[in-house]
Amino acid sequence: MTAPGRTAADTRFLEDFRAMSAFGATPSGGVDRQAATEPDNAQRRWLAGLLEEAGLRVVYDRIGNQFGLLERVPGAPYVVVGSHMDSQPTAGRYDGAYGVLAAAHAVLRAAERDAAEGAEPPYNLAVVNWFNEEGSRFTPSMMGSAVYTGRLPLETALASRDRAGTTVAQALAPTGFLGDTDGPEAVFCAEIHVEQGRVLENTGTTIGLVEACWAARKYRVTVRGDQAHSGATVMEDRRDALLGASLLVVAARELADRFPGVLHTAVGSMDVYPNSPVTVASRAELLLDLRSHDEAVLAEADRLLAQEVARIEGTARVEIDLDLSHAWGIDRYQPEGVELARGAAERLGLSHRGILTVAGHDSINMKERVPTVMLFVPSVEGVSHNEGEYTQDDDMLAGLDLLTDVVRGLGSGALPSTGVHDPAAVRA
Amino acid sequence: MTAPGRTAADTRFLEDFRAMSAFGATPSGGVDRQAATEPDNAQRRWLAGLLEEAGLRVVYDRIGNQFGLLERVPGAPYVVVGSHMDSQPTAGRYDGAYGVLAAAHAVLRAAERDAAEGAEPPYNLAVVNWFNEEGSRFTPSMMGSAVYTGRLPLETALASRDRAGTTVAQALAPTGFLGDTDGPEAVFCAEIHVEQGRVLENTGTTIGLVEACWAARKYRVTVRGDQAHSGATVMEDRRDALLGASLLVVAARELADRFPGVLHTAVGSMDVYPNSPVTVASRAELLLDLRSHDEAVLAEADRLLAQEVARIEGTARVEIDLDLSHAWGIDRYQPEGVELARGAAERLGLSHRGILTVAGHDSINMKERVPTVMLFVPSVEGVSHNEGEYTQDDDMLAGLDLLTDVVRGLGSGALPSTGVHDPAAVRA
Repeated sequence: MTAPGRTAADTRFLEDFRAMSAFGATPSGGVDRQAATEPDNAQRRWLAGLLEEAGLRVVYDRIGNQFGLLERVPGAPYVVVGSHMDSQPTAGRYDGAYGVLAAAHAVLRAAERDAAEGAEPPYNLAVVNWFNEEGSRFTPSMMGSAVYTGRLPLETALASRDRAGTTVAQALAPTGFLGDTDGPEAVFCAEIHVEQGRVLENTGTTIGLVEACWAARKYRVTVRGDQAHSGATVMEDRRDALLGASLLVVAARELADRFPGVLHTAVGSMDVYPNSPVTVASRAELLLDLRSHDEAVLAEADRLLAQEVARIEGTARVEIDLDLSHAWGIDRYQPEGVELARGAAERLGLSHRGILTVAGHDSINMKERVPTVMLFVPSVEGVSHNEGEYTQDDDMLAGLDLLTDVVRGLGSGALPSTGVHDPAAVRA
Repeated sequence: MTAPGRTAADTRFLEDFRAMSAFGATPSGGVDRQAATEPDNAQRRWLAGLLEEAGLRVVYDRIGNQFGLLERVPGAPYVVVGSHMDSQPTAGRYDGAYGVLAAAHAVLRAAERDAAEGAEPPYNLAVVNWFNEEGSRFTPSMMGSAVYTGRLPLETALASRDRAGTTVAQALAPTGFLGDTDGPEAVFCAEIHVEQGRVLENTGTTIGLVEACWAARKYRVTVRGDQAHSGATVMEDRRDALLGASLLVVAARELADRFPGVLHTAVGSMDVYPNSPVTVASRAELLLDLRSHDEAVLAEADRLLAQEVARIEGTARVEIDLDLSHAWGIDRYQPEGVELARGAAERLGLSHRGILTVAGHDSINMKERVPTVMLFVPSVEGVSHNEGEYTQDDDMLAGLDLLTDVVRGLGSGALPSTGVHDPAAVRA
């Protein structure tokens, strides 16, 4: 049965969304589908079935990106549409997964409508499920799209290890998702995602047209001290790596508090060695991020962070290595793509506004290669990376409608192409 | 060949010490022999061989304590002499292991001398290698002696899990070290250990006569926040468990700095969940210790810690549970035992002084049951729980001489017995 105002296609989408959310479901209503774990693998097999049943050809590239190809113009490049289905541990159902399923439905709807109208669009359509966007099991995050676009060497990605020492290559080998192709040539890209913030909700807006991403600097930090008995050793003799790391976590937060609303800082992960109850730690490793929508503030924060590091080295008698693992500026999405999406939202009568993304997305990699459209739908209370993440069904369906229109537009060549991204050329 | 001034027995001890230090040896000159890991097991098999070759009967109790029994008066209780051979990860060669090997040699020397002099001492002698003193793999520390003395229920100890989820019972089952006896009845106890501090070195003293232990309060702390996207979530919305835990580590250090030389504080271990690069942590678990030789200061530190916890709960918007896992006061070793050891040191011409122990030792458990003598030899620069831990051979040999004399005195009934500790009665 279809609810009032909803089409049968809408109902099918919501049914697919419920079915999809069962993979790696947690008791508290979230999911746990870290990259190349069994729930992630099972969900990918399910998606492959769904795409193949709809007539798409499913292929994998050498880093395990999953593509569903709808080839209607033999040899033409593809509009690549999608997101990622892997998740953080104990995460929400929407992050990434919504974007992949919406891409699958949007591609099919767009092709159906084009066919029904007798249109002869110049480009093919592809659904993509990028590998390991989250980066919780294997660093770096956005791995699949980074390899596809040539920003990260394939060999580096395949050699990345999880905490148990398993490499990406080892984790993917038994899954059947390690292909021997480089994936399709791309001419445009589109991605839809939940906002993971409160801007759309606070302004009562249905659609965010993503204009740019916040600038970011991500550091891998090692704090070195010296092992000692944590009871017997006099305090002045201690060189406590955990104390140094803790001072750095506090300093990062204080840095954000100096630039309210303009600077976000975080330490999400910390590993302590030997991590024993009665031993002063000799080493702590942590990942520290700075993000801002103001590049001058980010540069200033970076300078202050270096000062804090020097201060903490003295206070805690430790050595601190700051290793910049990745960084990006305030990169704009192509304004023509934003305008294409704005026009589609107007036609569909959807409220919309320009917005920035603070979180990283695969589309940030893709927009460096081909014109890329990034869309947001609201997140209730901005909750994300949390089992309580929630987006209203109506907002998901509105986003799907808009994405369908955008895919049709991109497929028909409504946006000027700046050339084709050939991942095989990147490899060569 | 025996060096000048050293007996053949001294040379044998040093040779045994070198052989013993090969188990779990690390490239930097330390050892890694966490409880019931293969290096610990291999070393215990080696010790069993050494004891049996010398004519002792090797038995194990229900928590894997290893005893070498020298029964010369059928049915009489035992002077129990020893320490532990397990280690922290990447630890030194002396901590615990020196005390077990010295016990083995002292027991044999004492029995030989008694026999040579035709003495008829009333008590038997036992060497002990306590299970899991370190507590780095399985908490709590001092586990074997705690079960033997009835301070910790056997079932609780056997159910303790390491980080991989393996219980003590599971780890011990395949080793053959899980016995079906309760171990020997004890009448006295003696332990020798490296100081793990600088007092003996700074005062040029060879022997520390341990009069009491510092008071301690050990907390298991859980900090609860809420998972969130560590990039997108606005700072004011975050409830960051890692920030709360870090503020607590810093607060613990500042507490020690308020009472210089009188209060030691430490957080050696911290586990963060989900510990992912782009997720605000929802939970952090840490172990926090307070130690002092002044019980009033310890009580005041405890009060200040509670204030800090309340402050941090507000600052970081987290909830903090402080769970007191174990605590002890400034417990004195029996003064008669200290005097017995002082007399022996005088006779041997060894410099000595009364001292306190900051670190915990199995003898702290034992002295609650039977009169117990605790001896220290110097640690170079006070370094311990570190691969660079070092004690001079001459100091080890001086300690062995003194321990031999103390064991002879205890075995001959030179100290009044306050009754017998029967571990079977504890179990019943």
